[in-house]
Amino acid sequence: MKAFEIRDGFGIERLTMVDKPEPVPGPGQAVVKIRALSLNYRDLMVVTGTYNPRMKLPRVPFSDGAGEVVAVGPGVTRVKVGDRVTPIFMQKWIEGEPDVEKGKSALGGVIDGLLAEYVALDQEGLVHIPEHLSYEEAATLPCAAVTAWHALMAEGKIKPGDVVLTQGTGGVSIFATQFAYMAGARVIVTSSSDQKIERARKLGAAEGINYKENPDWDKKALDLTAGAGVDHVVELGGAGTINKSLRAVRLGGRISLIGALTGGAGDVSTVSILMKNVRVQGIFVGSRVMFEDMNRAISLHKLQPFVDRVFRFDETRDALRHMEHASHFGKICIVV
Amino acid sequence: MKAFEIRDGFGIERLTMVDKPEPVPGPGQAVVKIRALSLNYRDLMVVTGTYNPRMKLPRVPFSDGAGEVVAVGPGVTRVKVGDRVTPIFMQKWIEGEPDVEKGKSALGGVIDGLLAEYVALDQEGLVHIPEHLSYEEAATLPCAAVTAWHALMAEGKIKPGDVVLTQGTGGVSIFATQFAYMAGARVIVTSSSDQKIERARKLGAAEGINYKENPDWDKKALDLTAGAGVDHVVELGGAGTINKSLRAVRLGGRISLIGALTGGAGDVSTVSILMKNVRVQGIFVGSRVMFEDMNRAISLHKLQPFVDRVFRFDETRDALRHMEHASHFGKICIVV
Amino acid sequence: MKAFEIRDGFGIERLTMVDKPEPVPGPGQAVVKIRALSLNYRDLMVVTGTYNPRMKLPRVPFSDGAGEVVAVGPGVTRVKVGDRVTPIFMQKWIEGEPDVEKGKSALGGVIDGLLAEYVALDQEGLVHIPEHLSYEEAATLPCAAVTAWHALMAEGKIKPGDVVLTQGTGGVSIFATQFAYMAGARVIVTSSSDQKIERARKLGAAEGINYKENPDWDKKALDLTAGAGVDHVVELGGAGTINKSLRAVRLGGRISLIGALTGGAGDVSTVSILMKNVRVQGIFVGSRVMFEDMNRAISLHKLQPFVDRVFRFDETRDALRHMEHASHFGKICIVV
Amino acid sequence: MKAFEIRDGFGIERLTMVDKPEPVPGPGQAVVKIRALSLNYRDLMVVTGTYNPRMKLPRVPFSDGAGEVVAVGPGVTRVKVGDRVTPIFMQKWIEGEPDVEKGKSALGGVIDGLLAEYVALDQEGLVHIPEHLSYEEAATLPCAAVTAWHALMAEGKIKPGDVVLTQGTGGVSIFATQFAYMAGARVIVTSSSDQKIERARKLGAAEGINYKENPDWDKKALDLTAGAGVDHVVELGGAGTINKSLRAVRLGGRISLIGALTGGAGDVSTVSILMKNVRVQGIFVGSRVMFEDMNRAISLHKLQPFVDRVFRFDETRDALRHMEHASHFGKICIVV
Repeated sequence: MKAFEIRDGFGIERLTMVDKPEPVPGPGQAVVKIRALSLNYRDLMVVTGTYNPRMKLPRVPFSDGAGEVVAVGPGVTRVKVGDRVTPIFMQKWIEGEPDVEKGKSALGGVIDGLLAEYVALDQEGLVHIPEHLSYEEAATLPCAAVTAWHALMAEGKIKPGDVVLTQGTGGVSIFATQFAYMAGARVIVTSSSDQKIERARKLGAAEGINYKENPDWDKKALDLTAGAGVDHVVELGGAGTINKSLRAVRLGGRISLIGALTGGAGDVSTVSILMKNVRVQGIFVGSRVMFEDMNRAISLHKLQPFVDRVFRFDETRDALRHMEHASHFGKICIVV
Repeated sequence: MKAFEIRDGFGIERLTMVDKPEPVPGPGQAVVKIRALSLNYRDLMVVTGTYNPRMKLPRVPFSDGAGEVVAVGPGVTRVKVGDRVTPIFMQKWIEGEPDVEKGKSALGGVIDGLLAEYVALDQEGLVHIPEHLSYEEAATLPCAAVTAWHALMAEGKIKPGDVVLTQGTGGVSIFATQFAYMAGARVIVTSSSDQKIERARKLGAAEGINYKENPDWDKKALDLTAGAGVDHVVELGGAGTINKSLRAVRLGGRISLIGALTGGAGDVSTVSILMKNVRVQGIFVGSRVMFEDMNRAISLHKLQPFVDRVFRFDETRDALRHMEHASHFGKICIVV
Repeated sequence: MKAFEIRDGFGIERLTMVDKPEPVPGPGQAVVKIRALSLNYRDLMVVTGTYNPRMKLPRVPFSDGAGEVVAVGPGVTRVKVGDRVTPIFMQKWIEGEPDVEKGKSALGGVIDGLLAEYVALDQEGLVHIPEHLSYEEAATLPCAAVTAWHALMAEGKIKPGDVVLTQGTGGVSIFATQFAYMAGARVIVTSSSDQKIERARKLGAAEGINYKENPDWDKKALDLTAGAGVDHVVELGGAGTINKSLRAVRLGGRISLIGALTGGAGDVSTVSILMKNVRVQGIFVGSRVMFEDMNRAISLHKLQPFVDRVFRFDETRDALRHMEHASHFGKICIVV
Repeated sequence: MKAFEIRDGFGIERLTMVDKPEPVPGPGQAVVKIRALSLNYRDLMVVTGTYNPRMKLPRVPFSDGAGEVVAVGPGVTRVKVGDRVTPIFMQKWIEGEPDVEKGKSALGGVIDGLLAEYVALDQEGLVHIPEHLSYEEAATLPCAAVTAWHALMAEGKIKPGDVVLTQGTGGVSIFATQFAYMAGARVIVTSSSDQKIERARKLGAAEGINYKENPDWDKKALDLTAGAGVDHVVELGGAGTINKSLRAVRLGGRISLIGALTGGAGDVSTVSILMKNVRVQGIFVGSRVMFEDMNRAISLHKLQPFVDRVFRFDETRDALRHMEHASHFGKICIVV
């Protein structure tokens, strides 16, 4: 079968298509024929070596995909041949809190990922795909959607009428918009483009702030909430934007720290966190139970993940370059 | 009556004793004869002008005190003449979440504080003193103890067996040690002095890390927890220590961000917060209900606040200088 | 001014219109000209004496109303003359947990209620009316809507995709339907009438169970959830229906115990509660903060309370008889 | 090897010692040589047929034991030969919320239990024994101690100063006393014997109520809390005592419904639950994560489980009869 590997060093150019033996299911395992994948910023970092410069190579990258079960090993009861499934991001984070062992089971990082025609995975690491979704759409869920769900529902416990501000129009932010809208919240999206704001409105955003026109988007957020501040910020910029988020959030509010697009460290006003009794909650994907809860909601609401553009398997490098340009809206996908 | 005011600019030297008319209780108010006060680092910042350089002057500083009700206005039912009481830090934060209006009611900041012989306060802003405590001891509670309680109990909900690391041996840290011990947790204290560690052990600390000898106290904390990390860090250093705290805390753990002794802003590894699913919870004092819950526990356990040294009212400036030297253990008090 | 009083004994017939002096606002008080009221089952019980046979008489009944501020006393800052407001059910339950003192401040029970042309209330016990609501609509909120909000949002913390079963089509149940739908949940309504189920569907119910046709509605609820059971039951029947609710709810699920329409005590399968790890949460109205949170959501969603029928002030006894017939859908109102 | 089975009908007399082949570990399994067991009231109900009269026979009863790993199957990493371990009550409830599948994995109920010399169990269903405990002591933990921990810590989140009332001096109640004391709470124990109250005091109870002398122990509990009521009741009597518990608990308090000693159903004042905003939380044992958290606390505090009396393996029927007499204090054990 075909697969892509990071082989002799990092960089999009060096991501290499290889031939590998087709996997055979061990006890408790299922072999999934991968039909579609989706990209996350993390995948770009993994391929270019900024995620972990000391990662052991070769490594099959990519955490997010969807496919069909084509073989099962002994003792498998959760899935059967023919089932449409999505692997979960951390293969061992079934439920409860994260821990070190669960953390080591993230696909396409410490262990091989899904950028291959077939993968063998433990049955516990698979969830069924909502019926109304295509493979491409289902492939968008494991990282971006589960992260947004974890932040807003499992941790944030947002309720109708809450004000949620989410940064940009990448995968997590668009899912956050859709989920927060689904939960009855009022969503404010920031973006560099009025056109993207317009598209976000169609998915449920109540308001948009163009941060090119309003570099002080935090003040605009205060204006939109009569000076009180928003209840919940979905922080995707990281160190470069969090101080504005701290000004935009209300006393006793919450910042879900999810992204590091502007850098993984930087000057942060810790005194604002304490003086405002703010909670900064780090969110790194989520558990299978969160994924299943989310799928139940996605099915009930017939929610459509927003696919930006679909590439062919042999165009994977182009897909990564498209991600690099950061001009996408929603998720970039690959069909196998 | 006598009172101290910050009058013609900031600085310990400029803190001035003045004569003021004795207050008369309005409707719903009680007049408290202040019998003792305690100092917080915030008081030093207020007096020296680093807390808020644009604070309106004159201002009576100090948030923490205890005394006796000597007069009550019409409609007062919560207290009566002769009651031993402590004013709460934010006079309007009775219960529930903080908000802007509650935030504006902090004593010795936006409004006048307690460094006076008599003060008139709304009855809702007073709590009764546990019977076994002296006025000096009770005066240590409103800011430091309530903050520690808020962090560990109201927010942290620590349970027996949890590992709590607290930084230093100032007021909040010593209360955190005592409260965490009372709740059955295992407490690790950091300090620059073996002698202070020894004293903290007597108050309930299970272990101490001398950060002079072990500048990488985060690694020591990992060692003490078999590599897992601690469950809860009481962060008093602020921006200068939080990166070590992020290394010392377990995946999914919690940092109560309380202090800013090393500065109010600085380089923070936001990517660690997200990759480890850590919660950073800003804690700024707490509500009257938290205070009352705490007092119930203090009474049950006959807990003794640790008084470092007691100054006379006319030695208030010396007390502030003693705070400035940062060599104290527990709380610095003033008797009136 | 005109008011109704329970005077010489209980019973709808004995509810008497009387003349009373118009109230004058004390310090911190506002006088509200009542423009509309709504009825709760509790009001019927109060009037007929089944709520508290030893209630001190005379008593002005009714807890729910809405009106206009016509005068304010000294020190009033939360409202001003001309404001449209609704009194809260327990005048002293501002936020946080309930307690004995808050419990004693319920309108139309221990203290006089709102069935009068004018009432004087503490400013802390008033909330502003969402702009898009009429006085009749606003009058439906204090008890029924706040109770439903408390159960599903403040306590239940329901999320999109959750399955909520609510009993009947009275005031609380219809608000529960509307709020749960607003929060993205899947709502199942039970009713004795297909017509009422149809109306509930228009307000957001996904499914209905006619318990006349399906007396074993608990089995039907299991069928609708593939045998798993519902996540949350809004229990309005009380002792007579809770055993069915215990069969209909999932392991680890939740029953909000709100009503006692079938009686205040009865045979309950406590062993089911424990074997299924079920939470039975008693819900008795809620706090002002819950009310304000709810109003924010109602305003955002332009939610319309469902008014069953409107009576004139002098037809109050007819309104109570209409309540007695239990054939209503949504709320019964009175205009003053 | 020797084992006991319920064979040709229920009843202590019919519990029969049999010879069975020694188990062999499958993939992921460990064989545990059982060294000690402890009895729960549920075991007595299982043996006498009141737990489930339609239980499929033969069945090996008993859920609680401790022993040594003597063999491991392929893929086992959590334990090794020689490890001292305790099986968890529901073998599949690792963490998170309970569900139907987890519920079906309870030892000595739906599946065979531990009353045998050797058992083969999945490695995920084992926890290590705290070092300072003997096998008998460790055998007391899986059901009674985990249940008490679940009620007070995982669900109840008690804090120092809280008032916890626990009923009787059986296994769960004594663990509840020890854990609540460890967490800094004030414990009130009810008992029919002053002598048992005295022993409970030595384990941490602050007060005791002899319900023979004070049949209205609920009033006594109100007296002990200045009329406010207790924060948390550990309800072991079930339907026959819950109405008293509802009177003894404070507004907004919590009842952990754990036992059914007085019957599995009965007349319950549902209206008290709602009027007092009480939470009744069904508690049925708990997860492995709760067990591990508890063991950490037990190790830190060197807590000693209270063993009432130890029987030999061939005296198992006598042990059950001793349980039947209900005169024990703490746990009844069997050594193998």
